Amino acid sequence: MKIRGAAAIADAGEGEVTFFGNAKYLPQLKASRATVALVPADFAESISAIAIRVENPSLAFAQLLEKFAPEQICFAPGVHPSAVLGRDVVLGENVSIQPFAVLEDGVQVGANTVIGAHGYVGHEVRIGSDCRFAPRVTIGARCVVGNRVILHSGVVVGSDGFGFEFSGGRHVKIPQTGIAQVDDDAEIGANTTIDRARFGRTWIQEGTKIDNLVQIAHNVIIGKHCIIVSQTGISGSTKLGNYVTLAGQVGVVGHIEIGDQVVVGAKGGVSKSVGPKKVLWGSPVSGPIREAKEQLAAVRRLPKLQKRVVRVEQLLDSLRKSLSPESEHLSG
Amino acid sequence: MKIRGAAAIADAGEGEVTFFGNAKYLPQLKASRATVALVPADFAESISAIAIRVENPSLAFAQLLEKFAPEQICFAPGVHPSAVLGRDVVLGENVSIQPFAVLEDGVQVGANTVIGAHGYVGHEVRIGSDCRFAPRVTIGARCVVGNRVILHSGVVVGSDGFGFEFSGGRHVKIPQTGIAQVDDDAEIGANTTIDRARFGRTWIQEGTKIDNLVQIAHNVIIGKHCIIVSQTGISGSTKLGNYVTLAGQVGVVGHIEIGDQVVVGAKGGVSKSVGPKKVLWGSPVSGPIREAKEQLAAVRRLPKLQKRVVRVEQLLDSLRKSLSPESEHLSG
Amino acid sequence: MKIRGAAAIADAGEGEVTFFGNAKYLPQLKASRATVALVPADFAESISAIAIRVENPSLAFAQLLEKFAPEQICFAPGVHPSAVLGRDVVLGENVSIQPFAVLEDGVQVGANTVIGAHGYVGHEVRIGSDCRFAPRVTIGARCVVGNRVILHSGVVVGSDGFGFEFSGGRHVKIPQTGIAQVDDDAEIGANTTIDRARFGRTWIQEGTKIDNLVQIAHNVIIGKHCIIVSQTGISGSTKLGNYVTLAGQVGVVGHIEIGDQVVVGAKGGVSKSVGPKKVLWGSPVSGPIREAKEQLAAVRRLPKLQKRVVRVEQLLDSLRKSLSPESEHLSG
Repeated sequence: MKIRGAAAIADAGEGEVTFFGNAKYLPQLKASRATVALVPADFAESISAIAIRVENPSLAFAQLLEKFAPEQICFAPGVHPSAVLGRDVVLGENVSIQPFAVLEDGVQVGANTVIGAHGYVGHEVRIGSDCRFAPRVTIGARCVVGNRVILHSGVVVGSDGFGFEFSGGRHVKIPQTGIAQVDDDAEIGANTTIDRARFGRTWIQEGTKIDNLVQIAHNVIIGKHCIIVSQTGISGSTKLGNYVTLAGQVGVVGHIEIGDQVVVGAKGGVSKSVGPKKVLWGSPVSGPIREAKEQLAAVRRLPKLQKRVVRVEQLLDSLRKSLSPESEHLSG
Repeated sequence: MKIRGAAAIADAGEGEVTFFGNAKYLPQLKASRATVALVPADFAESISAIAIRVENPSLAFAQLLEKFAPEQICFAPGVHPSAVLGRDVVLGENVSIQPFAVLEDGVQVGANTVIGAHGYVGHEVRIGSDCRFAPRVTIGARCVVGNRVILHSGVVVGSDGFGFEFSGGRHVKIPQTGIAQVDDDAEIGANTTIDRARFGRTWIQEGTKIDNLVQIAHNVIIGKHCIIVSQTGISGSTKLGNYVTLAGQVGVVGHIEIGDQVVVGAKGGVSKSVGPKKVLWGSPVSGPIREAKEQLAAVRRLPKLQKRVVRVEQLLDSLRKSLSPESEHLSG
Repeated sequence: MKIRGAAAIADAGEGEVTFFGNAKYLPQLKASRATVALVPADFAESISAIAIRVENPSLAFAQLLEKFAPEQICFAPGVHPSAVLGRDVVLGENVSIQPFAVLEDGVQVGANTVIGAHGYVGHEVRIGSDCRFAPRVTIGARCVVGNRVILHSGVVVGSDGFGFEFSGGRHVKIPQTGIAQVDDDAEIGANTTIDRARFGRTWIQEGTKIDNLVQIAHNVIIGKHCIIVSQTGISGSTKLGNYVTLAGQVGVVGHIEIGDQVVVGAKGGVSKSVGPKKVLWGSPVSGPIREAKEQLAAVRRLPKLQKRVVRVEQLLDSLRKSLSPESEHLSG
C-alpha cells in the first residue's frame, strides 16, 4: 500500500493520511475514508483507518505534509532588471530583489533575503539576512528589520503614527520622527500596519507572530514570542511583556502595560494595565473567563430576575398590609 | 421636460430623478427639489416631485443610474509592455494585463479577464474568464479563481495561514501548503485578506460577496451566496453554509459550523456552532435580537434593580424584627 | 552643557531632553536620567532633571523634536522614467512622480504634490497641490483629492461600495457610479479603505484625520476636523457632523446622523442617530461613560445579586409560612 497524499479528516480519501488532533472531530474521524490516521498516544477508539499513535498528531502531520507538499516556490538570487535601486544600496550574498521593487538610497539587505515584487524599502532601511518579504510590502524610511523575518503582502512597517495637537480649531500634525523595528524571527500578517514612533521606536521583539489586519500604533513595544491574532489593535505607547497572547479583534488602549504571559480572549477590550499571567475576557476585560461566563449567564437570566424582584416586592407589600398597621411605617 | 441626472434625495435638484426606498427619508423626500421620484407601489404621500410608482424603487433607480452614469472605464485587451510574465503563462482571448503586473511561471488567465496595474499573480495560479482585478491585487502561488470574480485593490488571496506550534519556548511555523480558492461570481472588497489553507483549501464559494478589510483564516469554507460585511473576521477551519449574512465587525471562532441562512448582527461574536436560519445578536451571540434587546434593556435598568433589592432586604429585615423573636431563626 | 537629543521619559539618558505630559508617568520622570524635562506650568514636583515649565509640554517637545529629528526625506520633483502616464495628464509645478506610478488618462495633479512609488491614480482623477502620497496608494477613477492631503501606504480611495440586490437567489451587483472626495488637509492612515458612492459622492471633509485600517462605506459623509481612530467602520450613507471623535474599533450603522462634537468611546457600537456633543460608550452605545460604568459595575455584581434575590425569596417564603395560613393566598 502506498500513501499518496495527506488531507484533513473531512477531505481525506483512500490512499491518504490524516490526523486527529481535536476531540470534536471524532465523528468525522469515524466516518473518514482515510487509509491512515495519526492519533494521540492514548487514543482508544475503534476506527476503520490504520491508527498510528504519536505524541503530537498535529506536529507529526505537519512533518508529513512537507513530504507531500508541492515543491516550494524559490526565488532565484539576483536583482530583477526592472527593480529600482538608489545610491549606496548594500546587498548581501544571494539576495533576491523581485520585479518592480524599489530600494531607496542607503538601504542595506542581509544575505539570502527575498524582497518580493512591488516591495518598497525606504531610505536607509536596514534588513537582516534570511528574511522573506511577500510581494507588495512597504518599509518606511530608517526602519530596522532583523533576521529571518517574514512579512506578508500588504504589510506596512513605518507609516506615520496618528498624532495631532488640537490648536486653533484644527488638528495640527505632530511629526513622527521615530522608527519601527521588527526583531529576529518575527512574522507579520497580510495588510497589517505598524506605525513608526513619534520619536524613539515602535518595537516588535524577537519571535513575535502577528496575524493579518492588525494595527500597532506608534511607540508600542511588543515583547518576545507574543501571539497577536487578526484584527487586533494596540494603541499608542502601550507595552506588552513576553509570551502575551491577544486573540482576534482585541483592542488595547494606549499608555498601559500588559504583563508577561497574559492572555486576552477574542473581542476583549483592555483599558488598564494588567499584571503577568492573567487570563482576561470581555470588554472591558473582567478577569478570568469563569467569572466572565458567570456574569454573562446572569445577564441572560436578568429579565427573569427582574420579574422575580417585582414578585418579591408585591408579596412583601401584601404581607405588610396583612399585618398590623403599626408596621406600615417600614415602607417610609 | 428633460431629466438630466439622478441623485440621492438630499442632493437631487431640479431636472433630476431620485428614489425613495427607506421610510426614514420621507421628510427629506417631502423637502426634495427633485423633479421625479421613484416610489414604492403603495406610496400614498403627497410630494412636490412627480411620483413614479415601481415595484422596487432602489432597483429601478439602479437601472436608471446606468443611463446617467459616466462612461465606464474599459481596459483595452493586451499585455502592457512593462508587465513581467514568467514561463508557460497562458492568456485567453482579450485578456488585459495592466502596467507593472507580474505573472509568475505557469499562470493561466481566462478570456476577457483584466489584471489591474501592480497586480501580482503567483506561480501556477489559475484564473477564470471575465474577471476584473482592480490595481494592486495579490494572488499567492497555486491559488484558484473562478469566472466573473471581482477583486478590489489591496486584496490578498493566499497569504500564509497563522499557524504555529509552541516548542522550546518559541513559536515554530507550521508550513501552510494548501491553497485558497475563490469560485465564480464572488466579489472581494479592498484590503481583505484570505489566507491559504494549512493543507487542502480555504474556499469562498459561488456568488459570495465579501466587503472591505475582512479576514478569512486558513481552511475556512464559506458557502454560496453569503454576505460578509466589512471588518468581520472568521477563524481557522470554520465552515459557513449558504446564504449566511455576517454584519460588520463580526468575529467567528475557529472549528465551528454555521448553518444555511444564519444572520449575525453587527459586532456579534460567535463562539459555538449554529443551526440553520438562526438570527443572532450580541457577543457572544445570544439568540434572537428580541431576547438580546430585552437583556440589554435589563442591563440598563440594573443599577435601579440593585437598589430595589437592597430596599426589599431592608423591608424584610424590619418586618422580621417587628414580628415575634421566634421568626429570628429564619435568617439562619 | 549641550543637549544632544530628545527621547521619551523611559528612554532619555544623560544629555537628552524629555517631556512630562501625562500624570501617570510621574514615577518614571522621577527615575529618569534625562538632563532636561519639559513640564507643565504648574509642575511642583522635585526631580533630578532640569525642569523647564511650558504651557504645553507635548507641543513644545514636538517643536524641539524637529530640531533633533533626522533630516526629512525629500522626493525630487520630476517624473521617474519608469512611471506610466496616460493621455492628457496635467502635472503642476514641482510635482514628483515616483517609480512605477501609474497615472491614467486625464489625471490632474497640483503643484508640489508627491505621488509615491507604485501609486495608482485612475482615469480623470483630480489631485490638489502640496499633497503627499506614500508608496502604494490607489485612487479610483474620477475621485477628487484636495490640497495638502496626506495618504499613507495601502490607502484605497474609490473602491466599489458594497451594494447588491437579492434577485433570483443571487446577489446582483448594483453599479457604484459615484466618486469619493477627500478635502483639504485631510490625512488617511495605512490600509484604510474609502468606497466610492453608489451615486453622488462619499465625502471626507476638510481637516479630518483618519487612522489605519478604517472602513468608510459608500455615500458616507464625514464633516470637518473629525478624528476617526484605527479599525473603526462607518456603514453606508451615514453622516457625521464636524469635530466628531470616534475612538478605535467603533462601528456605526448605516443611514444615521451623528451630530457635531460627538465622542464615541473605543469599541462603541452606534445604531441610532445621535444629537450634538453627546459622549457615548458601549455597544450599543448607552449614554455618558458614567452611566455605562455604573451598568458595567452592576453586571460584575450580578451573580451576587441573584443569590441575594434567592435568599430574599426564601426568607419571604419562610416568613409567610410562619404567619397565619390566611396569608397563604398571597403567593397565589
